[in-house]
Amino acid sequence: MLHSLFQLAFTISSDRCLEVFSVAPPSFCRVNLGKSGLRVSCLGLGTWVTFGGQITDEIAEQLMTIAYESGVNLFDTAEVYAGGRWVRSSLVITTKLYWGGKAETERGLSRKHIIEGLKGSLQRMQLEYVDVVFANRPDSNTPMEEIVRAMTYVINQGMAMYWGTSRWTAMEIMEAYSVARQFNLIPPVCEQAEYHLFQREKVEVQLPELYHKIGVGAMTWSPLACGIITGKYENGIPESSRASMKSYQWLKEKIVSEDGRKQQAKLKELNHIAEKLGCTLPQLAVAWCLRNEGVSSVLLGTSNPEQLTENLGAIQVLPKMTSHIVSDIDHILGNRPYSKKDYRS
Amino acid sequence: MLHSLFQLAFTISSDRCLEVFSVAPPSFCRVNLGKSGLRVSCLGLGTWVTFGGQITDEIAEQLMTIAYESGVNLFDTAEVYAGGRWVRSSLVITTKLYWGGKAETERGLSRKHIIEGLKGSLQRMQLEYVDVVFANRPDSNTPMEEIVRAMTYVINQGMAMYWGTSRWTAMEIMEAYSVARQFNLIPPVCEQAEYHLFQREKVEVQLPELYHKIGVGAMTWSPLACGIITGKYENGIPESSRASMKSYQWLKEKIVSEDGRKQQAKLKELNHIAEKLGCTLPQLAVAWCLRNEGVSSVLLGTSNPEQLTENLGAIQVLPKMTSHIVSDIDHILGNRPYSKKDYRS
Amino acid sequence: MLHSLFQLAFTISSDRCLEVFSVAPPSFCRVNLGKSGLRVSCLGLGTWVTFGGQITDEIAEQLMTIAYESGVNLFDTAEVYAGGRWVRSSLVITTKLYWGGKAETERGLSRKHIIEGLKGSLQRMQLEYVDVVFANRPDSNTPMEEIVRAMTYVINQGMAMYWGTSRWTAMEIMEAYSVARQFNLIPPVCEQAEYHLFQREKVEVQLPELYHKIGVGAMTWSPLACGIITGKYENGIPESSRASMKSYQWLKEKIVSEDGRKQQAKLKELNHIAEKLGCTLPQLAVAWCLRNEGVSSVLLGTSNPEQLTENLGAIQVLPKMTSHIVSDIDHILGNRPYSKKDYRS
Amino acid sequence: MLHSLFQLAFTISSDRCLEVFSVAPPSFCRVNLGKSGLRVSCLGLGTWVTFGGQITDEIAEQLMTIAYESGVNLFDTAEVYAGGRWVRSSLVITTKLYWGGKAETERGLSRKHIIEGLKGSLQRMQLEYVDVVFANRPDSNTPMEEIVRAMTYVINQGMAMYWGTSRWTAMEIMEAYSVARQFNLIPPVCEQAEYHLFQREKVEVQLPELYHKIGVGAMTWSPLACGIITGKYENGIPESSRASMKSYQWLKEKIVSEDGRKQQAKLKELNHIAEKLGCTLPQLAVAWCLRNEGVSSVLLGTSNPEQLTENLGAIQVLPKMTSHIVSDIDHILGNRPYSKKDYRS
Repeated sequence: MLHSLFQLAFTISSDRCLEVFSVAPPSFCRVNLGKSGLRVSCLGLGTWVTFGGQITDEIAEQLMTIAYESGVNLFDTAEVYAGGRWVRSSLVITTKLYWGGKAETERGLSRKHIIEGLKGSLQRMQLEYVDVVFANRPDSNTPMEEIVRAMTYVINQGMAMYWGTSRWTAMEIMEAYSVARQFNLIPPVCEQAEYHLFQREKVEVQLPELYHKIGVGAMTWSPLACGIITGKYENGIPESSRASMKSYQWLKEKIVSEDGRKQQAKLKELNHIAEKLGCTLPQLAVAWCLRNEGVSSVLLGTSNPEQLTENLGAIQVLPKMTSHIVSDIDHILGNRPYSKKDYRS
Repeated sequence: MLHSLFQLAFTISSDRCLEVFSVAPPSFCRVNLGKSGLRVSCLGLGTWVTFGGQITDEIAEQLMTIAYESGVNLFDTAEVYAGGRWVRSSLVITTKLYWGGKAETERGLSRKHIIEGLKGSLQRMQLEYVDVVFANRPDSNTPMEEIVRAMTYVINQGMAMYWGTSRWTAMEIMEAYSVARQFNLIPPVCEQAEYHLFQREKVEVQLPELYHKIGVGAMTWSPLACGIITGKYENGIPESSRASMKSYQWLKEKIVSEDGRKQQAKLKELNHIAEKLGCTLPQLAVAWCLRNEGVSSVLLGTSNPEQLTENLGAIQVLPKMTSHIVSDIDHILGNRPYSKKDYRS
Repeated sequence: MLHSLFQLAFTISSDRCLEVFSVAPPSFCRVNLGKSGLRVSCLGLGTWVTFGGQITDEIAEQLMTIAYESGVNLFDTAEVYAGGRWVRSSLVITTKLYWGGKAETERGLSRKHIIEGLKGSLQRMQLEYVDVVFANRPDSNTPMEEIVRAMTYVINQGMAMYWGTSRWTAMEIMEAYSVARQFNLIPPVCEQAEYHLFQREKVEVQLPELYHKIGVGAMTWSPLACGIITGKYENGIPESSRASMKSYQWLKEKIVSEDGRKQQAKLKELNHIAEKLGCTLPQLAVAWCLRNEGVSSVLLGTSNPEQLTENLGAIQVLPKMTSHIVSDIDHILGNRPYSKKDYRS
Repeated sequence: MLHSLFQLAFTISSDRCLEVFSVAPPSFCRVNLGKSGLRVSCLGLGTWVTFGGQITDEIAEQLMTIAYESGVNLFDTAEVYAGGRWVRSSLVITTKLYWGGKAETERGLSRKHIIEGLKGSLQRMQLEYVDVVFANRPDSNTPMEEIVRAMTYVINQGMAMYWGTSRWTAMEIMEAYSVARQFNLIPPVCEQAEYHLFQREKVEVQLPELYHKIGVGAMTWSPLACGIITGKYENGIPESSRASMKSYQWLKEKIVSEDGRKQQAKLKELNHIAEKLGCTLPQLAVAWCLRNEGVSSVLLGTSNPEQLTENLGAIQVLPKMTSHIVSDIDHILGNRPYSKKDYRS
């Protein structure tokens, strides 16, 4: 277990980091999270796979240092993970509640769990506050008013700066906003959603409408589709890969299914485009996510320092994502969701 | 022209109707419209195709009498149609604004058009008020606050009892609700949506969520898919049918498309089920709509008295819609939308 | 006096007008008034000079017919003027309160005067309601809350569809909005302001900010600067002109002042541009107002049928207002207001 | 570095100060800050030039002691400066956020920066709270609701007593007020604005309207126009002056411009008035600012103890600012903004 990763990182590398920042300020891509004033790097470090105890403290620290020195300021932790202190105000640290890994008694988005869960999370990370607290998964057993009141409470207590949602439907988010307006509470600023070449509908169709109506931004995860887009499953499932692990049985099934094989075929074609642009397939996939203007930030989930460095290189690929290239990719994928506006329903 | 159909109908048949009602009260299927207190018959008479000038006053009156005597209390008119007075309190009369039949200059859901449009509609129908006024189609050029304020105004002026939406997305309805809550205005009670064997997503997935969250009910139209489900297009397009008319070119194209031909094949299979249940295909299709507990009322749109009587018979088919039968139909259709709740997104 | 101009107009020419509309719908320029849903023609007929008793009923009717048949739907009347009925829903009729022409006892924007004034205005115009009621000039002796409550009252009573302001400062409008939000009242949708080649600041700098923040649109008047831009004062003041009248002494003084003479020199230069574009100077001046995207509608104030027809021709000049031409005009005028954003204050 | 100037000052001189106060209470000019209940001295010590590291701790302490003993209770610090503890309740200490001296990543008026910035500022100044926290410069990238909620938060947490704005337009302040009223949050009490003989519009025209409408007061800075009004640039730019420094290139350019030379000519004339009144030019300039009843407090920015003492003497000049003298000064300056109230717009 690693209880205070941020603290470790701080002790070891803060001086160097500060220097790096003063020399090369991380201006490569700061954007507002939704319509809020919070500015995040367009690439963030997702830690849910990374720091779940599967990697050592050393690797974790290495990953964070690489990310931070590349200009990343967004670190997405989850309640079950470690955290800590760095140059605090230069970091945007998030946490998730209702993660599912806890005992049943703590589950749900009851006021009790939101407050206790966040307090526990802050203690484990040795932090005074997080920047964004996410309600992971909706909870249909708790009234929305209770959830929004509790989120407003933790913000007004100084335990969080903003709150967001994760895996909620557009309707649920709209309901949260509606309740916030009705009772003069604080509405959410951001939805975390899965988004990659093979899953587009929610982020490309539903979230933009939400952004325009109520200012909620999109922070996306799994840009490489749990590793499927790395190409490592091109010839079956290697023994060392995640998909060969027991708890990832669902991933294995997905890969060997007919849909999975079709996806591998498409990835081969996309690889040609990547080669043409002089980048790797994962870089193309991450840059493709970034090209979507509705996306505030893309969370990278790799647990391998070399891969992280490679993925971060997607920033350099972004300017090459011309409308022509994007159109070619759409053609290969064949899954571009169409707007429902001109649709006679 | 038929200026006061309801008036005609009233004069001729009110006595008989009252008698019929007192003998056999229309208890066959009264349900609340959404979570509102308004009780409507589960089958309603949709008038948009029926009373557009294509049928005579006599036929129109005949249709209304048949429906009313069968227990129907819901009459869905539109701004452009005639209306009138019957046993007023026993009727639920609706009207639609922003229908599209007016000059471009009058379009939209501006406060001006909502008020003037409804006034004009009431004058044409010689009514003091309607029970539900529908905003037909959303209007992205008018702020939601203006729309909800105007709807609240016409209700507070006694020109309507409730208001609803038609062809709005779930998100737009949620926004209307949100604005109503924020400014203490009156939220909509109902969405009118197309619903039949070949179009299910909105009514089966999105509207139930709306119903549970904010109490908005579903009133559905086109249960026979503009006549496609009657079976009359099984062997091509008869000359006398609607699809052969110039303004229904889109319908013709739909029928002769590949999708259209696949639908005809499925209809043949469904016909076998209908035969097994001892009913007609249209009756099966209407009963299938009614089996959905989320649907408050299904609007019938036929312009033929015999067909209307036949369609109304769907009520008798309803008890036969066992889970087994419904499952068989789903199997034939192959388009059952699956709930996103248990889906790992 | 002409008490019911609209009624006259209606009686005489409504049939012809309806025909005209069915043949050539007035699609030439409908825009939303601010962010409201009300759609007005981009040119309107301002009546404050026109219909003040200085012209006959026949001329007034002629002016309205010309405007209406050209596609104008916006008729700006004032409390002291006549009005009436035409094809009501196709017209946007406004009126002004606190005009100043009344006895002192009725002045001000007290609740009493807003309600009594509007009632009187509706009676004189034989109208049930106006589309927009304007509070002409702010009234610092009446609390803003009282004004906004009274405006909300007349709207909720059905005497007006919307309310707007005239000659208010941006600050006063913002205060009205603020009060409306605080007490859940109805905010104004539009400010009427003077706007022409020689007066730009308010419409070009202040109102755009208001539009973006709170959706208030601009309806502008005096596009020809009380006739100065017609060129008729180029060689002094003709005896028959308005400026020779006793009550327009201020206009005469303005024209013969040094500023006035400088303006005449600039008008000569602008005339060259007009010639180059194949239009008249007034047409150029009106088109120049229309080029400003922040302006919803420009009110024409001429009392001469030929001049009105000429002015309406500005619509054809609008497409010729390229950025190059606009820049040339700015150079001649030398009064382009600069944005305060990049100004180190 | 001076980490705890207030602490030093406290240790050394508090006893004497208390005595001074008990003998001669600083009644020379206490006024309410806007319509708030906070009473400030009409002259304050602006520290942005003074304490930026350009002067020693000793000088800084000397300046503060002079000011305090003269009756000044208002000390305007900025986030980047030192602060400390004196007789806390007798001091009005302010701080500024979004100053611009921080890394780009921390900029803006996001909730995160407002809270973290103020916390950091309090730590550096070793204070529990400030009396007024200013949002320096508006931030169009952060929603006004977020800014006002965060300001309300820091006040409710006890980190500040009031909040104000700096360099905001009247419209932006009005929007903040509007949002505060809409959501029942705390509105700002004060705007800090540049004000001196050569810059008058905002403080003389716009802020009075704000004061009357919503009670926001004016705290002004740069009464000597960054030293221009001291007369030291009369014969060009001395080597030792601020304007000769590299980072003040803009000031140098301003002084040697044609406008700059015209200003020097006017200053010569004003010097004659100063001589007539028996005071120095800077004293006249400061007293002239104070004569404006709309100004709550004028911040002095000198870094020289003798100059500070001299400037503070402006209080004695104030009674000599008769309407006659003020009119003479207006005549020399030729820049009196005229109220738009009596202007026929």
